[in-house]
Order: sequence, then C-alpha cells, then structure tokens
Amino acid sequence: METPLTPAEPMLWSGWGDPAKAAELPAPVRDLLTELLGVRPPARPAATFGEVRLPPATLPPPVLAALAAVVGDEHVRSDDDARIRHTRGKSTPDLLLMRAGDASDAPDAVVLPGSHDEVAAVLRLCSEHRVAVVPFGGGTSVVGGLVAARRGFTGVIALDLGRLNRLIAVDPVSMLAELEPGLRAPQAEQLLAGHGLTLGHFPQSYEYATLGGFAASRSSGQASAGYGRFDDMVAGLTVATPRGTLEIGRAPRSAAGPDLRQVFLGSEGAFGVITSLRLRVRRAPAVRTYEGWRFATFAEGTAALRRLAQQEGRPPTVLRLSDETETMVGLAKPTELGAAGGDSGCLLVAGFEGSPGDVAHRRELAAAVLAEAGGVHLGPEPGEKWAQGRFSAPYLRDALLAAGATVETLETACFWSNLPRLYDAVRLALLGALGAPLIMCHVSHVYATGASLYFTVVTAQTADPLGQWAAAKRAANEAIVRAGGTISHHHGVGRDHREAYAAEIGDLGGEILRGIKERLDPAGILNPGVLIP
Amino acid sequence: METPLTPAEPMLWSGWGDPAKAAELPAPVRDLLTELLGVRPPARPAATFGEVRLPPATLPPPVLAALAAVVGDEHVRSDDDARIRHTRGKSTPDLLLMRAGDASDAPDAVVLPGSHDEVAAVLRLCSEHRVAVVPFGGGTSVVGGLVAARRGFTGVIALDLGRLNRLIAVDPVSMLAELEPGLRAPQAEQLLAGHGLTLGHFPQSYEYATLGGFAASRSSGQASAGYGRFDDMVAGLTVATPRGTLEIGRAPRSAAGPDLRQVFLGSEGAFGVITSLRLRVRRAPAVRTYEGWRFATFAEGTAALRRLAQQEGRPPTVLRLSDETETMVGLAKPTELGAAGGDSGCLLVAGFEGSPGDVAHRRELAAAVLAEAGGVHLGPEPGEKWAQGRFSAPYLRDALLAAGATVETLETACFWSNLPRLYDAVRLALLGALGAPLIMCHVSHVYATGASLYFTVVTAQTADPLGQWAAAKRAANEAIVRAGGTISHHHGVGRDHREAYAAEIGDLGGEILRGIKERLDPAGILNPGVLIP
Repeated sequence: METPLTPAEPMLWSGWGDPAKAAELPAPVRDLLTELLGVRPPARPAATFGEVRLPPATLPPPVLAALAAVVGDEHVRSDDDARIRHTRGKSTPDLLLMRAGDASDAPDAVVLPGSHDEVAAVLRLCSEHRVAVVPFGGGTSVVGGLVAARRGFTGVIALDLGRLNRLIAVDPVSMLAELEPGLRAPQAEQLLAGHGLTLGHFPQSYEYATLGGFAASRSSGQASAGYGRFDDMVAGLTVATPRGTLEIGRAPRSAAGPDLRQVFLGSEGAFGVITSLRLRVRRAPAVRTYEGWRFATFAEGTAALRRLAQQEGRPPTVLRLSDETETMVGLAKPTELGAAGGDSGCLLVAGFEGSPGDVAHRRELAAAVLAEAGGVHLGPEPGEKWAQGRFSAPYLRDALLAAGATVETLETACFWSNLPRLYDAVRLALLGALGAPLIMCHVSHVYATGASLYFTVVTAQTADPLGQWAAAKRAANEAIVRAGGTISHHHGVGRDHREAYAAEIGDLGGEILRGIKERLDPAGILNPGVLIP
Repeated sequence: METPLTPAEPMLWSGWGDPAKAAELPAPVRDLLTELLGVRPPARPAATFGEVRLPPATLPPPVLAALAAVVGDEHVRSDDDARIRHTRGKSTPDLLLMRAGDASDAPDAVVLPGSHDEVAAVLRLCSEHRVAVVPFGGGTSVVGGLVAARRGFTGVIALDLGRLNRLIAVDPVSMLAELEPGLRAPQAEQLLAGHGLTLGHFPQSYEYATLGGFAASRSSGQASAGYGRFDDMVAGLTVATPRGTLEIGRAPRSAAGPDLRQVFLGSEGAFGVITSLRLRVRRAPAVRTYEGWRFATFAEGTAALRRLAQQEGRPPTVLRLSDETETMVGLAKPTELGAAGGDSGCLLVAGFEGSPGDVAHRRELAAAVLAEAGGVHLGPEPGEKWAQGRFSAPYLRDALLAAGATVETLETACFWSNLPRLYDAVRLALLGALGAPLIMCHVSHVYATGASLYFTVVTAQTADPLGQWAAAKRAANEAIVRAGGTISHHHGVGRDHREAYAAEIGDLGGEILRGIKERLDPAGILNPGVLIP
C-alpha cells in the first residue's frame, strides 16, 4: 500500500513557509544588527491578514463561468484568501509589500486545472478573452516571476498547478520517472522513495517549490555538484501552449536540430505551461555525509573548489564555500574555526552522497585536493550543522525583516578567471548603494569552467525599504552585466532581472525570444511582463 | 617557436579523404560481397574530374564584385575546381552523384572570409541581393546539409570558413580555449597540444571536419562517454547573422532564460554563422588504452553498457558495442572471439584515457561491471585494433562503392527501455526495403538514460543505386519516427532528415524554428532547404 501523499500546506501569506517554524533571532545576531548595522525596529508593525488591501477582481462573470466549465466550479477561486496567497512570490520586496498590506498585484482569480487537457483548454479560453495567465507552482519566485503586466488584458488569473501532482510512471531501465509539474519537491521525493529513487534536487526553496517551477526557472540545487542542475535532469517535457501541445525529448541527447527542451527550460511560463516532466532519477544514496574544511582566504578556497571541479574524478556531491564575512557571521563563536590569530578564515562544506565505496573514494580524492590547496580538515561538525539548517535561511529573513533589517540575496555566475573581478564588482556596487551593509557571499555551484556567487546583504531599513533595495539591486545588476557575469545562476529573470537580461543577451537574443513567443502565444497572454525584453 | 599549422589539404572530390590513403578491399570482404550479397562491378566506371558536369554559374558580376570588395578578389572563387569541391557533402548519395559526374548542386561561387566582420558583411550583402549562403566547414555532412534550395534566389555561394583557423586565446584558469570555426579538428588538437590540452572530440570525420561544423551539427565523438559531446564543450559562441552579431555564454550555466547557445548548436547554418567558439578543454591524457570484451548477445552487451552508464563512477572514455553481425564482419577470422560453439558473439571496446591513477580506477570499476554482466575480457588487442582503424571506415566505403556495393550508415538514439524495439524496427525496415542486405549495428554513445544505435548497411547496387538507397532511407526514417527514436543522434538533419524531423518535433516545434529564423534571417538566405520544416 502506498503512503498517502503529504498534503501541500499553504505557506505563510506574508513570509516564508510554515508559521509554526518561525525563527527567533539569536541574541548575537540581534546584537550585531543593533551595534554593527544600526538596525532599529520598524516604525509600523506588519499588516494583519485582515488589513491587506486587495484590488477589485475585474474578470467578467462570463469568463469566470467559462473557466469553471473547463475545470469545475470548485477549482475557480476568487476569494480573498486564494487571491492573497497567489500574489507575487517570495522576494524581499514581495514580502515588504505584503507586510505593508499591499496586494495590488493579486490575480483576479485562481484557476486549478486537473489535467493537461484542462490546462490547454484554459490557455485557449484565455487567449480568446485576452486574459493574462500566470503559471503558479510553489509561489517561491524571488525575481518577480509571478506578477503579470495587466495593461491590455481583461484580467489576470493565477494558474495553480497544484492538482497536477502525480507520479505517472517509473522506467527503472532508463532510470526515468514521469512526474506532474505541481508536485512539491518533498512530495516528489516521497513518491520516488517508494521505488528506492531520488532526484537529488535540493535548492533552498526545496520544501515548497514544485517540479514545474524548477524546470521553468532552471533551478539548481545545493547538491548540484553531484546530481547536476535540474535542467540536466529533464529528459522530456509535455508543454501546453495557446496553440497546442509539444512533446519534447525522445532520447537523452540528439543531433536533430536545436535542443527544444532548452527553449522551455528557463522560459518562466512565457512560452507555455509544462504539464509533465520525464526526469532522470538515481538510486537513493545509502550514505550522506557532510564535512567542513577551513581556508585562510576566499581566494584560496575558490582555487581549491576550482581544482575539485577540474580534477578527473567526480567532485563531492555538495560544495559550498563561504567568504570571510559569511563564515564569521555563520559561526556562534567567531573564532571557533580560527587560526592562531583569531581569524575565522573561510568555511568550505563538502558533502558526499552515494554508496559506501563511492563515497569513500570521492572523499579520498577530495581530501587530497583540498589539503594540497591549503585546506584544514575540520571534521563532520560544520558540515552536519550546515545540512541541518540548509532550508532555514528564509525563516531567518522573516525575523530580520520584522526586526527592522533589510535582507535580500542575489546571485550570478561566470567563468573561473573572471570570478574575482565579479565578486569585487558586486560588493562595490552594494557598498556604494547601501552605505555600510553586511555583505556575505558563498560559492555553491561549481563547474569545470566556472562557478556561481551567491550574495546575502543585510542593512538597516530606511523609511523606504523598497526604494532602498531597488537602488541597491539596480546597482548590483549593472555591476554584474558590466563585469561579465550572468544576471542569474539559478533564481531566474522574472521582472526584476529583465532589463539586465536584455543587456546580457543583446538585441538579437531578445529577437529570438520574441520570435518564439509570437508563434506559440500570439495573444501574448502567458506571464506578460516576465522574462522577454 | 610554434609549429606551423598543418595545412588543410582538400579531400578527394568524389570520395573520402586523402587519395593516397585509398583502401583496398581485403579478399575475405570481396568474397563476402560476391557470395553473400551478389555484388557485381558497376556497369559504368566512375566519372573522371574532367567529365563532371557543372551548371553555369548564375551570380551576376556586380554581386561577385561586391563580394570581392568585402573579402578580396583572391577569396572569391568561381573556378571549376573550387565549385566541384564545394558541391554537397559526403553521404553515399552525394558520392554516387559525383561518381556519376553530376555536380548540379554546385554553388555559383566559393567565398572565403577572413574575419567575423567579413562574414557579417557577406551575410548583409547576400541578404540584400537574395543570394543563398551555405556555410561550409569540412564538407563532411552526410545528411545533405550542404545543398541550398536555389528557387527564389539570385544564386548560391558556399561560405568556406577555412581561413578562420586561429587559436585566439587559452584561459588555463577556466580551462577554456577560444578557437575559430574553420579549424579542422586535427589542427585544433595540434594548436591545443602546444598548451598540453585537448578537446577530446574524435568523431569518425575527425581528420576533415571543422569546429564550426561540430557545433552547428551537434557532433558526438567516439570518446563521448569520457569527454562528452561537442555541444557539452561549448561554453560560448560568437554568431554572425544577417541582422547582426550575437555573443552568447557568460558562464558555464545560467538561469537567465533559455540557453541561447542551444539555439545555435544544431542550427546547421540556418540561423547564423558561428565565427568563434569558446570551448572547454582538458589536460591531454597521459594514458590511452583500449581493450576488448566479448558478450554472448547484443542484448547482454547493451545491458552491460547500461550498467556502466548508470553506475556511480565515471564510465570508460570510449564505449562501443558491435552487434553479432558487425562483430562477425569486423573480424578477420570470424571465430577468433568465439565461444566453444564458434559463435563470435558481440565485441565491446572499452577505452580509457587519463592519468595513470584515474585510468586504473576506472578500469577496475568497469571490469567489475562488465564481468558481472557476463562479459569475457579479451585483452588489449581488439581495442587497439579498433583504435588504429577508427577513422578508416569512409575509405572502405569508397572501395565498396567502386566494387558495386551500396553502403551507407544511419543512426538514431532513444531511452534504454526502448532500445530493443528501435533496433528491431530499423532492421526490419531496411530488410523490407533492400531484400537481403548486410545490416550491422553498434552502440557508440551511452548516457545514463539511453544510447545511440549506429547502423551500417551493405547491399548489391541495383541499376539505380540512388533510388535504391532513397527507398531504404525513407523506410528507415519512418521506422525511427514510429519507434520513438530521434532521427539523428549525431549526423544532423540537413535535407535528408527534414521530413522525419518535422514529424519528430511536431507542428509547434517547426513553428519555434521558423519564429527564430524569421527574426535572424528575414530574407531566408541562410542554408535554405536545410533543417527547418
């Protein structure tokens, strides 16, 4: 008998995750905020659910009725609760707006299709009536991926894919599983665990994000060095568009033209709605073990990561290197990793998942490389501590926002030789825009030819925290483009990166996207305002 | 001092490679052809170079003058030699036509640009004058990728990229090299060897194919299990289009929208001309060693390959499994691999390249898997024999054609669970179309989720060998599409697969391609008739 699927509980409407798991700020963090950053409690308390201002819903009743005729009355929701919970995503600006009671970007209705055919019918209907459609998975976008441009449309619906939550088939010979897009990652892992399988995809949003969202936004998980990125796992897709259905992926790889899977990976709902995914699966690992290494500097640590990524053997499953600031802030006792001088250095977490023999072999390979690169082995404690807290940072953000801090993350990637320049450029831009913020950084995704940089910024809220962050974000985006980085390694483009993305891909890159969009979505109803320059 | 670049000698105009290396048919092969297949010498001898019929060149003199003004007089060639050597590619139908003296698909002129800017200027000029442009690298296409549809155009030029043959830069930190598209693979390896580096890309066309062609056709080399496919190596591209230039690739991987590199990989010159490639490079391996294993049946052998591809550790660098027929034909003494009963079984070649330690580790891993899967170790001889002859099959084809045999190859790929069905379907289609041909097959590219199938077909030429093969090819293409394979794993689409490709990607897949084409090449001059349905 199968275990029933763990229900997908809704997230806190104004913050992250399960309200019961809300984080308390540890005393040292509270002191740091006050003393170092001058953080003071915000002037106004956060809005309650009842205080949220919702715009009137504008969808004409005949359109609502037509939608209900497709998906069933109970699957078209226009109540305040549904609309508020489908308003925007989970970026810091998104949370600041909700905390201020502003749900002005709410959809007019939430539509929950139960099958591919229902998705296709909804898209046809919305094309006909010029209703904008925002495909909605876990609602975890941090780049403004869930806000449609209303102008020129009759209204906006959120197309919540939560009912498409089945494991359709497992092909143990090909090591493929066919899954529906609305499955949250833990649900998918639960279903696959019944077959002894795993995807191995664990981004920070793991507990709430969905498979469809992973594909549409080219997600990359914390174990990407071992299991690859989500786009690496996608062997096939079924996509509903206003003009019909695409079935893509007959083989692992092909020389039959451009790889059309790659057109929809990263398409953020602007070209179609993914209704089924054929994903590469692995046998669930027998061993999971994480350990810490100390490097004197971020430069030494990144050089060590590079050697691991460029060695012949397979790298660790998880690799994460914190810079000096992130290492210091992440420690309860700042000197605990320290050399004699009290300098904490930089913490590298290496994780290994697999069979006992494979893990032993890779640990040995990695230890040789890391030690030769100047690393000091710290044993399992820092690794296991990281693993325990790996999904908790968004809870901490809620507490920081409540305490009066502005906190947000941003990320980029580039080739190895450019990494120091990109690191400096982003830090300089944030310093210039924010005065004296706390800027932490880590590398968490490595490749033979380059790596990602993930920044966390904390500063005292001004009277206009939205304007404050918008200026910092603009400066960081410009710095990334100028310094030759990509505007996102794993968060996506959404609305927040659209301008920088346009600069990154150039006029003709934009033309390619518009050429595709025009053919698949001639009425332009799919997530308008997102991605496409 | 750098060694001067080995010059790119032209290929035999009517066949493969260096005329001095022409193969003689071994006596047992000659006997096999006569006795088993009833092959008889062709009624007519092959045309001499002087007998080739060239159509008149139709490009108006002002257009030729304008092209010469861009690239220089000496780089616009309209002589017979240049035109004949840029007529079509190297498929068997291509060779049959040339052997019959038919150069009706010759371009009007061959244009040899010397820089990106010259390529861009030529494309603008040709758009203005409606001149079709066939980008031409090594001229090794076997899918009709080098024949432009003339209708509606003022004329056709072959854009030979041979002068773009520089190693522009090496980035040893990122392990990237920037190279020009007209470099033949051995030239690129020669330049990289000066830095202790290699691409590790060795398709059968290695000696003549170019880097630009590898990218434009999604080439896959014999060492793909170790070094990956060519598309895996492409970190960045510069592409000239009639509407301007694209620079793509700022990071190994990105979540900033669809991966635009993937739009040009496999685009076969229909979207733009690749003028520079940033490629992942590796340290040249200290050890290269190849060995043979015997499996009783193709099914057992493919199961073993699958286990190797799905194990945790890295697979061998080269993996190739011949079916029973290919194994038997490939052996001088058919029983030399045989079990007691005289059955030759199936030969698997496993090759290992890397450092001594890495090779030793991977050999051990592979040996354990292969032995457990029923393989019998045959030692190095069959492996080294394969390695010595790895680029010689096209020479043998010339000899077979001259002897009166029709011989051609075709290939596909699918997921593992579908492989037996696809194998049977293609064989059945070829048997139905050709009567009693010799059909050999091997698997030479493996992935965790699937593999390629590469068929070689030999039969007695009829009076109409072109019609004979066209019927067989049509049957095979239809069988591949019906059985769920991709129409090409590494040869590409060209003209020969265009119909099957249309069926594979569906109407909306074609719409995506047309949408891109329309934006980048509004006059439709780029390789018209190729790829796009």
